[in-house]
Amino acid sequence: MNIAVIGLGIIGGSYCKALKAYTNHHIIGINRTPETAQKAKAAGAIDEIGTPESLQTADITILCMYPQACVDFLEQHGALIQKNSIVTDAAGIKRAICPQMTALAERFGYIYVGSHPMAGKEKNGFGVSDADLFRGASFIITPCGAPYEAVNTLSTVAREIGFGTIKLATPEEHDRMIAFTSQLPHVLACAYVLSPSCPNHRGFSAGSYRDVSRVANINAKLWSELFLENKEPLVEELDILIDNISQIIGAIKAEDKEKLTALLEQGHQVKQALGE
Amino acid sequence: MNIAVIGLGIIGGSYCKALKAYTNHHIIGINRTPETAQKAKAAGAIDEIGTPESLQTADITILCMYPQACVDFLEQHGALIQKNSIVTDAAGIKRAICPQMTALAERFGYIYVGSHPMAGKEKNGFGVSDADLFRGASFIITPCGAPYEAVNTLSTVAREIGFGTIKLATPEEHDRMIAFTSQLPHVLACAYVLSPSCPNHRGFSAGSYRDVSRVANINAKLWSELFLENKEPLVEELDILIDNISQIIGAIKAEDKEKLTALLEQGHQVKQALGE
Repeated sequence: MNIAVIGLGIIGGSYCKALKAYTNHHIIGINRTPETAQKAKAAGAIDEIGTPESLQTADITILCMYPQACVDFLEQHGALIQKNSIVTDAAGIKRAICPQMTALAERFGYIYVGSHPMAGKEKNGFGVSDADLFRGASFIITPCGAPYEAVNTLSTVAREIGFGTIKLATPEEHDRMIAFTSQLPHVLACAYVLSPSCPNHRGFSAGSYRDVSRVANINAKLWSELFLENKEPLVEELDILIDNISQIIGAIKAEDKEKLTALLEQGHQVKQALGE
Repeated sequence: MNIAVIGLGIIGGSYCKALKAYTNHHIIGINRTPETAQKAKAAGAIDEIGTPESLQTADITILCMYPQACVDFLEQHGALIQKNSIVTDAAGIKRAICPQMTALAERFGYIYVGSHPMAGKEKNGFGVSDADLFRGASFIITPCGAPYEAVNTLSTVAREIGFGTIKLATPEEHDRMIAFTSQLPHVLACAYVLSPSCPNHRGFSAGSYRDVSRVANINAKLWSELFLENKEPLVEELDILIDNISQIIGAIKAEDKEKLTALLEQGHQVKQALGE
């Protein structure tokens, strides 16, 4: 197949490198700044530097841009895309874009299947992209009414490049779970490192500091967009979290050892039940 | 030297294994339940199964028990300890025990140097102890007025068994930093996994879920004691955290993208400034 990847940052670059490393598909890389596309070509991550016109030959198009930028790109260039070919994205939120993406697919005659590769790093850009970024990770598909055949085609490619779990979800299910599994830890990490104690942690810290603070090294522009486009589920999870922290604070302030132990034990039990 | 380790759980067991693996000291293991001491002997983690009477021959005694249990043990058996020998502990809080520990040392004529090995796992007991648990970790010493010579002796042993950083601190400095670096992440992890979304995270989660939830697999009894004995600094850090999370929630609710981006960017800058 011809596979076009648009946006050669960490996710797009990793798609290209993984597709080149683990499949025989022909990879077309499209990027706004030509230097990055040239770098990708020189690195052997793509077979061909493309333009929007190249989408006429693509069997699968993968948009690896900020969520709204995906919609904007298709508004502008959707007419160039091969009829009945598959278009997917890599956006971390789905309710905010899936309806528009589906409407655009209907307008232009290609097939839209939403997806979200659950992988990343604390750094951005083609320079940190990695053929093994997706190894063992989850690949969430939001079919949004696409035919099974298209979903299967995308799943197969995802398996080939190393994803460990393929999960189908509605945009609502996706966004609700992502609010908890991904967005909440990012909010927490940023809030955590804003303590005045943080700059002095060296020598007093171990794994728990490292782990909870890791994703504070955030792309503020991207994550602001992701948070705002997933406002309700995220605020709901944050309210639950504040409530749970407040219960623990209450038990500490009241020096209620029994209640405090019971709250912590609940946390322990959740992890035990998950076998983690 | 003869080094006695009292309490052969994950920390005590790791001390024994590391001392056997990386030094030539003679290791005496003392444990309440004899089965664990026998297991340690059979595993070659100790040279000798001891009793409190063995402390008459120990040059260094390391107490690896719950904080108050260290004080109770010395109240009961302190008279058996060799004069001018060094006694240390491994407790994760220091203000709550250092004054009593120092008073007991003066009463019985040995030297107390507080310490806190910044290492652990999400599992407990001798079975998960590890000769390399301390590799590269921080070793915090609260000298509490002990002579430099004793501090140096303890530092040297800590270096020999793999600790990467030796940090001196007052009990107050220790407890304030530990509230931030270690206790706060444990509160957070427990509060986080209490979301009703948690049991369904599989397939929707990646590194950020794994990292922030890791230490929720907590020893509720131990950590309740640690939290309550460090109430003021911990509550202060928790209040700062709640305030920082609330600011982020406020920006999301108000859909104030500029403010939200600025808050996240602050987090990013803290990590960047630390080179993390």
